[in-house]
Amino acid sequence: MSDGRGGVFITFEGIDGSGKSTQARRLVEALRAEGRDVVLTREPGGSPGAEEIRRLVLEGDPDRWSAETEILLFTAARRDHLERTINPALAAGRVVVCDRFADSTRMYQGLSRGDLRALVDQLHTLMIGREPDLTVLIDMDPETGLSRAKGRQGTEERFEDFGPELQRRMRAGFLALAAEFPARFRVIDGARPVEVVAAEVLATVRTALGGRADG
Amino acid sequence: MSDGRGGVFITFEGIDGSGKSTQARRLVEALRAEGRDVVLTREPGGSPGAEEIRRLVLEGDPDRWSAETEILLFTAARRDHLERTINPALAAGRVVVCDRFADSTRMYQGLSRGDLRALVDQLHTLMIGREPDLTVLIDMDPETGLSRAKGRQGTEERFEDFGPELQRRMRAGFLALAAEFPARFRVIDGARPVEVVAAEVLATVRTALGGRADG
Repeated sequence: MSDGRGGVFITFEGIDGSGKSTQARRLVEALRAEGRDVVLTREPGGSPGAEEIRRLVLEGDPDRWSAETEILLFTAARRDHLERTINPALAAGRVVVCDRFADSTRMYQGLSRGDLRALVDQLHTLMIGREPDLTVLIDMDPETGLSRAKGRQGTEERFEDFGPELQRRMRAGFLALAAEFPARFRVIDGARPVEVVAAEVLATVRTALGGRADG
Repeated sequence: MSDGRGGVFITFEGIDGSGKSTQARRLVEALRAEGRDVVLTREPGGSPGAEEIRRLVLEGDPDRWSAETEILLFTAARRDHLERTINPALAAGRVVVCDRFADSTRMYQGLSRGDLRALVDQLHTLMIGREPDLTVLIDMDPETGLSRAKGRQGTEERFEDFGPELQRRMRAGFLALAAEFPARFRVIDGARPVEVVAAEVLATVRTALGGRADG
């Protein structure tokens, strides 16, 4: 899994309401309980500069940036996050768990406002380059995700903004990504009780970590 | 000069203290006195979103962004500026005069913190594409520029931050760019009285505009 220079980079992906943030937190708690040195981070954001860019993009009128400008701003935030948070932690041999990464840009910016996937990929190759060692896709149908998200303040509105049709396209898009990058993707059924999903995530990550020379 | 869709896009480039901002303003006044419909704008900035990105980059610790993140942020600002200010004005048949554009990124971000020119060019091709119809390079040796800039609040400090050696490299870099793109660049000696320089700029622009079917 590792490139031999130290830590392991694990990302969580999935549609809104899939429970991926909860699962990322639970995984970090379980790995720390085993004595592993783990960093939990998230995108957009994850470093002071990237959090400033996050506020610039997400606050104010959501339509004030074109899709292309938004992709550039998210890539700037990712570059800062990578340089300031992710790469130093990996170089120190730590496990980095990140809630959303480039795959979310491939889906949300790449699909939601036109077919910009090729542009997202070219920009990623040019300015980011790095892919996760392991990507956990928490898969869930949008209706189940919506009913879960309704219990949470703030999430529902954005979820409904995207709409069930777009959420269905996002789910299909994430599954297609997993098929496109089978070496790093693991798809986990998120429609089961949180504890059951967490146990499968932990087992999957343990298998991946166990494959490393120092795992 | 034009691509046939309307207006003409003119940029001013040069090192700090070269007088290019003064010359851009004077050109706009002269063209307006002739009854032309002219927009004066500048980079970084030039649209509400791009001005927000400008503040994000230029305020605070100048070293808080890496060269690569700074290039992404300036490119995001340029994309917004192009979409919201420059392209609509050109489509309406207006003359757009812009104080700094992509050539400044090729020089300042491309040369000042390492050799990133190739990266700047690749990002420009991918996300911006558009070049000016005419670029006026106000050429001046750094010592003359510095003595002029000393009269102006705020400029001197940044100028001296760059240092005379880097300013000499920037001047040489701009002249090399002009040689690289001879079709759109015009080099004008800025070390003469402001009125003399302004007259040559206006004559140069008139010749360029005169070459258009509707000029």
